Amino acid sequence: MITNISFFNLDRKQMRKKSVHPFQSTDKDMKKDAHTEDLMTNLPNLSNAYASDLLPSKDGKDLTKCFLLQVVNILLHYIEKTFDVKSKILDFHHPHQLLEGLDGFDLELSDHPEPLEQLLVDCTDTLKYGVKTGHPRYFNQLSSGLDVIGLAGEWLTATANTNMFTYEIAPVFTVMETVLLKKMCDIIGWGETEADGIFSPGGSISNLYGILVARYKKYPEIKTKGMTSLPCIILFVSEQGHYSVKKAAAILGIGTDHVIEVKCDERGKMIPAELEKNILQAKRKGQTPFCVAATAGSTVFGAFDPLHDIADICQVHRLWMHVDGLLAACNQMRARYLFQPDKLYNVDFDTGDKAIQCGRHVDSFKLWLMWKAKGTYGFEAQINRYMELAKYLYKVLKKKDNFKLVFDAEPEFTNVCFWYFPPRLKHIPKGFERDQELHKIAPKIKAQMIEEGTALISYQPCGDRVNFFRMVFSNPATRQADVDYLLDEIQRLGKDL
Amino acid sequence: MITNISFFNLDRKQMRKKSVHPFQSTDKDMKKDAHTEDLMTNLPNLSNAYASDLLPSKDGKDLTKCFLLQVVNILLHYIEKTFDVKSKILDFHHPHQLLEGLDGFDLELSDHPEPLEQLLVDCTDTLKYGVKTGHPRYFNQLSSGLDVIGLAGEWLTATANTNMFTYEIAPVFTVMETVLLKKMCDIIGWGETEADGIFSPGGSISNLYGILVARYKKYPEIKTKGMTSLPCIILFVSEQGHYSVKKAAAILGIGTDHVIEVKCDERGKMIPAELEKNILQAKRKGQTPFCVAATAGSTVFGAFDPLHDIADICQVHRLWMHVDGLLAACNQMRARYLFQPDKLYNVDFDTGDKAIQCGRHVDSFKLWLMWKAKGTYGFEAQINRYMELAKYLYKVLKKKDNFKLVFDAEPEFTNVCFWYFPPRLKHIPKGFERDQELHKIAPKIKAQMIEEGTALISYQPCGDRVNFFRMVFSNPATRQADVDYLLDEIQRLGKDL
Repeated sequence: MITNISFFNLDRKQMRKKSVHPFQSTDKDMKKDAHTEDLMTNLPNLSNAYASDLLPSKDGKDLTKCFLLQVVNILLHYIEKTFDVKSKILDFHHPHQLLEGLDGFDLELSDHPEPLEQLLVDCTDTLKYGVKTGHPRYFNQLSSGLDVIGLAGEWLTATANTNMFTYEIAPVFTVMETVLLKKMCDIIGWGETEADGIFSPGGSISNLYGILVARYKKYPEIKTKGMTSLPCIILFVSEQGHYSVKKAAAILGIGTDHVIEVKCDERGKMIPAELEKNILQAKRKGQTPFCVAATAGSTVFGAFDPLHDIADICQVHRLWMHVDGLLAACNQMRARYLFQPDKLYNVDFDTGDKAIQCGRHVDSFKLWLMWKAKGTYGFEAQINRYMELAKYLYKVLKKKDNFKLVFDAEPEFTNVCFWYFPPRLKHIPKGFERDQELHKIAPKIKAQMIEEGTALISYQPCGDRVNFFRMVFSNPATRQADVDYLLDEIQRLGKDL
Repeated sequence: MITNISFFNLDRKQMRKKSVHPFQSTDKDMKKDAHTEDLMTNLPNLSNAYASDLLPSKDGKDLTKCFLLQVVNILLHYIEKTFDVKSKILDFHHPHQLLEGLDGFDLELSDHPEPLEQLLVDCTDTLKYGVKTGHPRYFNQLSSGLDVIGLAGEWLTATANTNMFTYEIAPVFTVMETVLLKKMCDIIGWGETEADGIFSPGGSISNLYGILVARYKKYPEIKTKGMTSLPCIILFVSEQGHYSVKKAAAILGIGTDHVIEVKCDERGKMIPAELEKNILQAKRKGQTPFCVAATAGSTVFGAFDPLHDIADICQVHRLWMHVDGLLAACNQMRARYLFQPDKLYNVDFDTGDKAIQCGRHVDSFKLWLMWKAKGTYGFEAQINRYMELAKYLYKVLKKKDNFKLVFDAEPEFTNVCFWYFPPRLKHIPKGFERDQELHKIAPKIKAQMIEEGTALISYQPCGDRVNFFRMVFSNPATRQADVDYLLDEIQRLGKDL
């Protein structure tokens, strides 16, 4: 059945003889089985074994396998629970409770080693008091959901335990990164000589890269002479853009005063006429615009800035256009991507490497394996499913008179923003007083959800809109029934508020 | 034996009845066994199963377990090989060979999904053509070695698949980070109110943080007004310091021209008198010194700058002192640390979070679990073992007349730098001609090593010293015998050069 794979055989002879397998259970029914009990004693005893007994210790082979398999046991159990809609998403405790030690789960670090058995207990407890981000009803973050293939990819990456320094020490992973980037550029329609990129540890660093490149393109002397040699340079981003753009400006020595937030329309899209107005204003002040950071899928509303219009403006004013987002499917893999329409990095920072980092985590394998597993069409189908769920939620919300959409238009992406109105509020007329009350509803419902662990969703205010729920579909485990459940749950927890 | 752990039981009933276990072998001897063959067919067939059949797919539970266990099989097999001194460290191929597809290992990404069985083959091939960085004779990088506990920690981290955004979504991991930081500060002797920090994705980003903090401390207006509001600020680092300090200066808008490289002594330590001279020179030019980036364990020589002397100079001139290094044991966990002797971050970047990143990878659990497993004393013993190996190598090298130490003094850290002299070169008198020849020796030996995959060590020139080997002990699997082997191997490959 499986070819080309050499199988691990922990005590295989022993197993064949005695039918021991590494996943022997300790359930009560099994404990009664004297035969099983007998066999269990043949497995290494982890209660008086220590890390120092594991590989590379001499004779550490079987113990290492046994220990790692026990860890995998715990993980598989957790994975099963994660996807079980009936399990709780979290078992909430306050930080001080965790610090004090819950049911013997002691976070304090000792000077002496703990036995392997205790480590397994710690692993179990770590997962027990954590949050199941792959649970079908976990909607709390932009990225949610557990991808089994991605998980397998991460396990292998951790085992290979190398670094993206050089081809020499990561031959397969560095080539995989190239293959992935080429494929991604192909999808956008950029040829090999037009584009380059790397995977970076998240969106904030990617935005930092984008602005770094924009500045370097216009002022290559920045690298050696620093910002004091430059005029007052100005960066534009929509008021709905990610805060990491401003943060990057602070880090790069540009200063947040020199980031102009461009007004958005009701849906959170940058208004091109406003951008043009802001550029002209800056120029009149003697400032030097250099870059527009556009957004493709904003954090709260999932809004897409009008990229073509912005591109036209950038062309007229000779500004670098950076786009934060694109290929959103990749976000949940922590593998964000930087596109550079021309190869800037032939003349590079100091040592010819592309990254801000010296060593880089191997992000390529996980994504590569997922791509193999799903195919491009699989990713497409996955995103389409999220879009359909967003549309479904939108339609359901429209019909319910105790919910209200933040804006009444079919979702363009997977974000849907809405308020819940408890009966008490429905009869208060629109206005300041009602808003003040409405503002408190989402936090109260959320606090209750955390306590009960039944579902998790985020909320925030935005501009003059008081706290509203933000649903973002990015969890492959979510089904329509979970969407229905969420609304019922909000209603159940909120109706008497 | 194991308590408090609920065991995974893939097809347990089936297993009990038919003694199937998930690690059934396909070895020839097993295939002959008709009974086994029969049982194998009861396991899910992965050749016509796809990622879409796994969880969260309905009825995907058993298939998911089976698939993940097969992956773990491959990983356990790899781990065993990694620690086997007789296995090759790498099976070298050129990038074009990998791209063309070796023995059917196809890196290209298709639009259609591949079956799970093919993914397992891909996993095997990925490891086959990679580099075993945990091999006892892998000395190529500053960080090497595979820690089984750290590995288990990474597997769990990947499974929990959360992010360090907030306590809300990573309650255990964020508290663990606090506990770890407190413990690390305790070791340095800093109280809770004196220190703060975060884990960052590597040393380069940590150095960037350090310099960012130094600049902010002196000029809090930098955040809003940018570098153009500042005088010409100057940063000092030793000529042996890590290149990421200069890189950080380029990124932060300081400019590499404003990084002064301070001269080192023969061992690679910053000379305090030179630092003072450089500070005074900068001041005379009207520049404004603001920070000294000292090094505790330099990249090439493992040199420690005289920290106390540098601290005195910093105090006199009111400069921020950043130390790159400290707690070197943590380097190999990719969990570098930033110390800030005063809480700058109460007034923080934009949103009150400490990191440049918005989301951060969970690095805390791996280190936490390792600390539990080893205890502080275990880490101490591990570092001491590396130090002893370094001393051993130093002593052996001193006795061999075809090897020469780059400097003849007992190692202060785990780095040992040396040349190998083939017999042909031993009789050429010291001077330019000999150096020219000697410069070619290490690369030739290394190229041979890569071809044969027997050991891996790095080399580089430094200043006026031509290419020399740099041994850094950080691999827990390395024994004295491996050190002896390395020298024999260098001699075998180099004697006729």
